[in-house]
Amino acid sequence: MAGTHKDFWPLEGGPVIILVEPKLPENVGMVARAMLNCGLNELRVVAPRWVTEQGLPLAHEKAVAVSSGADAVIHNMKMFDTYQGAMADIEYAVATCPRKHDLFKEVVSAREIMPRVLERFQATQKCAFIFGCERTGLTNEHIAMADILVTIPLNPSFCSLNLAQAVLVMAYEWFQLYQHNKTPKNRQFKVAPKEELMGFLHQLEEGLDKTGFLRVAEKRPGMVTNIRNMFTKASLTSQEVRTLRGIVNYLLKGERN
Amino acid sequence: MAGTHKDFWPLEGGPVIILVEPKLPENVGMVARAMLNCGLNELRVVAPRWVTEQGLPLAHEKAVAVSSGADAVIHNMKMFDTYQGAMADIEYAVATCPRKHDLFKEVVSAREIMPRVLERFQATQKCAFIFGCERTGLTNEHIAMADILVTIPLNPSFCSLNLAQAVLVMAYEWFQLYQHNKTPKNRQFKVAPKEELMGFLHQLEEGLDKTGFLRVAEKRPGMVTNIRNMFTKASLTSQEVRTLRGIVNYLLKGERN
Repeated sequence: MAGTHKDFWPLEGGPVIILVEPKLPENVGMVARAMLNCGLNELRVVAPRWVTEQGLPLAHEKAVAVSSGADAVIHNMKMFDTYQGAMADIEYAVATCPRKHDLFKEVVSAREIMPRVLERFQATQKCAFIFGCERTGLTNEHIAMADILVTIPLNPSFCSLNLAQAVLVMAYEWFQLYQHNKTPKNRQFKVAPKEELMGFLHQLEEGLDKTGFLRVAEKRPGMVTNIRNMFTKASLTSQEVRTLRGIVNYLLKGERN
Repeated sequence: MAGTHKDFWPLEGGPVIILVEPKLPENVGMVARAMLNCGLNELRVVAPRWVTEQGLPLAHEKAVAVSSGADAVIHNMKMFDTYQGAMADIEYAVATCPRKHDLFKEVVSAREIMPRVLERFQATQKCAFIFGCERTGLTNEHIAMADILVTIPLNPSFCSLNLAQAVLVMAYEWFQLYQHNKTPKNRQFKVAPKEELMGFLHQLEEGLDKTGFLRVAEKRPGMVTNIRNMFTKASLTSQEVRTLRGIVNYLLKGERN
């Protein structure tokens, strides 16, 4: 469909799109197009397989070729070795998942989530929509670091969306709400970025390792995931995270005699 | 994203998707996937260029290859030489258009249209979403035969969607409403199918040719389009169309002396 001016970006900000281990650079190019269609321009990619397989310049070229003019999104794209790196400054993380997950966490539809994202965005929180790799989606470890899960309601007999289409639906739903709500932002509602939360969680896990709570090796990963999930769901503020760090420090010292 | 059972179609009906002169069979395959994602299964294609360029079997093969399992939609696809043929039994036609058009016709958003489509659908009217070719979109002649125009609200600086993505957004919006409204249908609200309307319009145009109203050759196409547009906007019933045919017949006989 026609009607494009490449040299004009009218919208500032909006949620970050995080792609975890995307398989093909072409998919990243189509994601960039879908993002810019809906006014989003901040793309992060975690451990893309094609960096080692194809080299970055060729991958960029392939992505740009299918982006239909959304080159700038690709050139601005940031790459991270780890999921935690990509999540460091995120304050409200929305993970997309097509299937049921074992973790107890609220699941809402792509439409239902957007008023909450808008509220966080207007409170100047850094929001992200997170998408797993084309074939396997997000793992429980990824989801544990998200504040909330989202599914896209589709024909239950045929609900397989490709990556760019999943991004398009989320970005489209965002834009439908955002376009009518460009009101001034406020700073009243502030949560800790994921980096601070992860700092606390690492401290806690280290403590739990020392005390033997996590001693059974085969159970450790699942237990860590559950612990991260519990604290992530709480929408903790930076002050609350600091308080928790203090609590863990004190607990580790043990009873005073 | 995973989670697909190819052998089970839970939904019956829904709007028909009509693609006018699509350029590439691959795009038709991706459209089929987007349709089935949202429970739609009736695809019509008008004058596809690849029938003459590539031959039908090869084109089908290419479309199936990218449809990710939505083969059945492609095998059930119907092809038409003319737009009017594809529209013959349609009772409520929604045309998608990214740009402003000259014709005076109501334009609403993809979300706003769906309650109206659902109302028509529940009244057992045959509904269609119409998409133009990838590069040029729909012409005024196509749009004149539609009941209403729809735009997809997107970043005004970068609103170029590919065909499958445009179909996905429309089908997705349909499914979000339909999934909660599978109530019994009623037949209280019935309009004339486009074939009956076109029969009347051809009779009228023939009469106008005979009487010299359309005598200026270079103005004729635009005038015909405007006339078709006026009568299409009226949501005429079959009885009203018959009445209009009678009126035109009587008018053509001229004044009685």
